[in-house]
Amino acid sequence: MRMASDQVKHVTSIGAGPIGAGWAAHFLARGYDVTAYLHDRNEEDKFMSVVNTAWPCLIDLGLADGASMDRLTITDDLAKATKDAQFIQESAPERLPIKQDLYETLGRITAPDVVIASSTSGLPMTDIQATCSTPERCVVGHPFNPPYLLPLVEVIGGNKTTNDALDWAMDFYAIAGKEPVRLKKEIPGFIATRLQEALWREALHMVANGEATPEDIDRALRFGPAPRMAVQGQCMAFHVACGAGGMATNLDQFGPALKLPWTRLEAPELTQELRDAMVDGCNAMAEGKHFEDMAADRDRRIVAILKAANDPL
Amino acid sequence: MRMASDQVKHVTSIGAGPIGAGWAAHFLARGYDVTAYLHDRNEEDKFMSVVNTAWPCLIDLGLADGASMDRLTITDDLAKATKDAQFIQESAPERLPIKQDLYETLGRITAPDVVIASSTSGLPMTDIQATCSTPERCVVGHPFNPPYLLPLVEVIGGNKTTNDALDWAMDFYAIAGKEPVRLKKEIPGFIATRLQEALWREALHMVANGEATPEDIDRALRFGPAPRMAVQGQCMAFHVACGAGGMATNLDQFGPALKLPWTRLEAPELTQELRDAMVDGCNAMAEGKHFEDMAADRDRRIVAILKAANDPL
Repeated sequence: MRMASDQVKHVTSIGAGPIGAGWAAHFLARGYDVTAYLHDRNEEDKFMSVVNTAWPCLIDLGLADGASMDRLTITDDLAKATKDAQFIQESAPERLPIKQDLYETLGRITAPDVVIASSTSGLPMTDIQATCSTPERCVVGHPFNPPYLLPLVEVIGGNKTTNDALDWAMDFYAIAGKEPVRLKKEIPGFIATRLQEALWREALHMVANGEATPEDIDRALRFGPAPRMAVQGQCMAFHVACGAGGMATNLDQFGPALKLPWTRLEAPELTQELRDAMVDGCNAMAEGKHFEDMAADRDRRIVAILKAANDPL
Repeated sequence: MRMASDQVKHVTSIGAGPIGAGWAAHFLARGYDVTAYLHDRNEEDKFMSVVNTAWPCLIDLGLADGASMDRLTITDDLAKATKDAQFIQESAPERLPIKQDLYETLGRITAPDVVIASSTSGLPMTDIQATCSTPERCVVGHPFNPPYLLPLVEVIGGNKTTNDALDWAMDFYAIAGKEPVRLKKEIPGFIATRLQEALWREALHMVANGEATPEDIDRALRFGPAPRMAVQGQCMAFHVACGAGGMATNLDQFGPALKLPWTRLEAPELTQELRDAMVDGCNAMAEGKHFEDMAADRDRRIVAILKAANDPL
């Protein structure tokens, strides 16, 4: 019987890099006891440098009751590191043989009901869990860098992962102050990296063609779409910008623009089904709020974001 | 002889829609006398509603000395609207015959040295200026919605535009509190819309394939890449995230990932020339700052952005 996700007190973070250390800092700030496993004690300085850098920001965001850096234990003994673990976040190097060795060991030495989440950004959990004797509790919990600040965690299982483990991980991450998004399909790059990568590749095309410099691209993003995207994402940004008609107006009016060469990326066919999925999704997010209220809310937040992003510190 | 860009006191904004009204609000907030030309006086309520909505945000961002909504004049007489104009921002409907008629008239009735900037997001200035007897002073000055908040203005000329007019427009926008980016080539969608459109089309692919819902996409952006993008754009985000090696490390290490199907968009060939353009561009933006200082700066700003974007208002 798996421990209730809101009863977890002790988290183990595996990995000495910026992701493992970032996760450790995050869980400390949320008031957990954290044991960090480093493959080599010589990595401790580098590891602590990330935690120490993160801490003032985490204080500013607001620590949970009882949160303290004193509740961090560091060890290079994997059995000790995982002995009392009630949740394990694994951020080992992104090489399949390393991960598979590790999961084989974790399968042997850890209690079989403890959920193990991998920070992997590219390896399928189906492959990672292949060597583990208890694969049903292994999930992907992919953070966005820096993981102590950006709340996103993308959650998906492998072929042998149970729904119960995925549900538990979604609940646990939400309780632990993250914003988990559960993927519907195992796609390369998950959601956030795919969106970012499309933009990034278009940026590289522009530089390759002499159409823009890196500085042009960064200024265009910082002073154009990014502040709005931080408030509303992209679907709701269009939904609210189109007034009373919302996303339906956007797609019905600008649908033909999907055929224009505004990027090197070909758009999908705008079928009735896709149109409805976009419109229904935006209406659900709007929760009945009037577009003018949402626009006013957006504007007040953009003002604060422009100041936060650009004013002298 | 064109008036010095820092001597401009009187701006004319053509157009009653959200873009024309948004520009009027912006220039009022920067302390200009603004004359707004509406094609039809019946549009005045709609126009004023945008200005009134914008004003509290503009106060919060900080008004220029002497800025006042009392310095707004509204007219449906184009000759009167442009008589004393020292700069004209045109935001007429996005249809080429309408723009061409308007520029033919403006060429006849306005002083030939006054710069006219079009807010067009899609029509080439070469086509717009074709009917104008004084095309050399006509430029594109494309804002990002909402134009009273987002600072970006993309500037480019048509075949007949002079460099002098473009230089003047760049200077004027910067003085008027905008962040102008001058395009190297006339490409469809300019820079910001192309970047946004690549991301948007990938998002539509995901929804069409049942890989993500609109809500998944917006949450992935808001809690993942967008807050960082608002601070650093995308080139500097990678440059700083790769530590001492910066963009060179990013491209040399992750270059092969450009071949992975992380988006439906095909990346350009990573030539030595492209690599160097990216690396040199990022080093220029970094201005010799240490990556740890840039990361610390980024983190403090992301904290403020997360609060601004997500805390209860």
